Amino acid sequence: MRTINPVNHKKLIIDVLTMAGLTTEQAVTASTVMAYADQRGIDSHGMILLNTYVERIEKQIIKKKPSYTWELNKGVIALLDGDLGMGHYIGDIAMKKAIQLAKEHTIGLVFVKNTSHYGASGYYTELAAKEDMIGFSTTNTLPLMAPTGGAERVLGNNPISFSIPREAENPIILDIASSVVAAGKLMVAEQKKQEIPLDWALDIDGNPTTDPYAGFKGGGSLIPLGNHKGYGLSLIMDVLAGILTGAGYGKNVGHSDIGFVMMAINTSAVMDKNKYNTRLNDLTGMVKDSKKAKGTDNIYLPGEIEYLNQKTRLAQGIPVNKNLYTELEKLTAKLGLNMNDYFTVQQMDSSIV
Amino acid sequence: MRTINPVNHKKLIIDVLTMAGLTTEQAVTASTVMAYADQRGIDSHGMILLNTYVERIEKQIIKKKPSYTWELNKGVIALLDGDLGMGHYIGDIAMKKAIQLAKEHTIGLVFVKNTSHYGASGYYTELAAKEDMIGFSTTNTLPLMAPTGGAERVLGNNPISFSIPREAENPIILDIASSVVAAGKLMVAEQKKQEIPLDWALDIDGNPTTDPYAGFKGGGSLIPLGNHKGYGLSLIMDVLAGILTGAGYGKNVGHSDIGFVMMAINTSAVMDKNKYNTRLNDLTGMVKDSKKAKGTDNIYLPGEIEYLNQKTRLAQGIPVNKNLYTELEKLTAKLGLNMNDYFTVQQMDSSIV
Repeated sequence: MRTINPVNHKKLIIDVLTMAGLTTEQAVTASTVMAYADQRGIDSHGMILLNTYVERIEKQIIKKKPSYTWELNKGVIALLDGDLGMGHYIGDIAMKKAIQLAKEHTIGLVFVKNTSHYGASGYYTELAAKEDMIGFSTTNTLPLMAPTGGAERVLGNNPISFSIPREAENPIILDIASSVVAAGKLMVAEQKKQEIPLDWALDIDGNPTTDPYAGFKGGGSLIPLGNHKGYGLSLIMDVLAGILTGAGYGKNVGHSDIGFVMMAINTSAVMDKNKYNTRLNDLTGMVKDSKKAKGTDNIYLPGEIEYLNQKTRLAQGIPVNKNLYTELEKLTAKLGLNMNDYFTVQQMDSSIV
Repeated sequence: MRTINPVNHKKLIIDVLTMAGLTTEQAVTASTVMAYADQRGIDSHGMILLNTYVERIEKQIIKKKPSYTWELNKGVIALLDGDLGMGHYIGDIAMKKAIQLAKEHTIGLVFVKNTSHYGASGYYTELAAKEDMIGFSTTNTLPLMAPTGGAERVLGNNPISFSIPREAENPIILDIASSVVAAGKLMVAEQKKQEIPLDWALDIDGNPTTDPYAGFKGGGSLIPLGNHKGYGLSLIMDVLAGILTGAGYGKNVGHSDIGFVMMAINTSAVMDKNKYNTRLNDLTGMVKDSKKAKGTDNIYLPGEIEYLNQKTRLAQGIPVNKNLYTELEKLTAKLGLNMNDYFTVQQMDSSIV
């Protein structure tokens, strides 16, 4: 498989978004978040979405030059109106604000409205962890799930991300959707003409289905994680990210009225850093060193596999499969860019990544 | 089945705990929380635990007259040392403190250590919802789950509860464990000599099992909700409730060093109350009025079934099955109480409930 080196990978994303009309500031931040996703093996949230984002920029669903405003800025909380800015750019601003508030007040809680898809939520919570803070983030998504007993998409598979800072360079990063699986898995199964497990999706009548088309494109819905548990989590996240922010909510969420929540909690305001590190190392040791099931060599902390992916991909390049390459080729050609500028074989210089 | 009227039910719990030596203050609060659980059909967290709690009081795992102290009380956060007080009593104090802090600062976040099992977490978050606040609570539990790939209990099935205030008298209340099912379900299956589904528990070697004994008493472990997702949530909750509070954590959590977290967020500091209510009513309407799956008559909001249980049980009495009655008979006799004082048939007077 083709790979692209991390420097060119970022440059490609910046150039595509810039040529599509985004301000450099927006393009650079978005490239950082999207590159993070691809580096960590969260391929569903990286360059694979460039085409979609460019379409949305063209349709002005994403604004080229947004003027975001702070509608509320009072003590521990703030509310950001994203002015249809690119979700990654607005999300980054929001989490950085939450971190700043947490430095002053121990906690920072930032609500965001009028923006778009922000990509991998773990990126934002990791920003908090890098500042020795516990990070939390959620966003609502377009409707994909039915409530328990239902047969209609009225809730997103709204994700939940937490990051936990620790002494080791890689924080604990949890980033989970509130559905059993992502919609992307159904599309892959459909392409490959494979059946899906009965606990992934419901058909349009609310019956569990093994047919990936019936479960998604045919009007079905994703099954919530643990049924009523995932339904409940998704609804709560929609109240936080949709209702309270002033964004869209429930079945009316669209591409340009998505809401986010970013929270940071300053751990050192609660416990001495050395004590915290000693205790957390003890806990992670208990987990990692615990008895393994047959066939398991290693127990991973949340986010650890993605961290190892990142190390590998930063060293060896980011894989680009044939379909993605072809799609990028069309997209760059349309925007007047040349794929050879990014995919020329060259020496890796990790110092400039 | 026998029932007990709600007034006598509360009185029975208060009398048992008082005769076991708890201060009236502790017994009254604990009875409120335990009665709430029984009223709402969360029978696993009500009087069924009286025997266990009395044993723990006798063994001084729960202190009869605790002197709790505030170790930290700074802006939006506080840390409570429970001095081995009964979890329900300490938990109630902690959530009320979080609510008070949120009135002053929009958010209140209270950490608790040195305490015991607090019962149904939804009780605490509902306290916040009654004050027009979003409530959040978690606690760690004794180790019951293995991490993904593991075969040893190193993490609790640490619960997550959120409450969402709304115009209707019943808030949205989510209260979920981070395992697929509670350990109690395996004990019931074992008693009834029934097999359990393969996704409930692992045996002592980390293999999924249909044998309820192998999955729990035989040294097995509960399977986390959605595997790596529930494992991650449980670990994060242990960092919040165990590591940061100064309580026990991981596989070392015992009955007397449990930690809690209580958080309240003042919704009216973020959005005008009328606007919030209108939007939330719209969202809950979308959910409840959405298309139903075949065989489903009603879609319930999180906590709605428990709210309906509560209405029924407050009117008709709380069911007490034969096993529980026999157990309570022994317990009350030991403490010098007379079951006939509580179970005499009498007219219900709902005005004094």
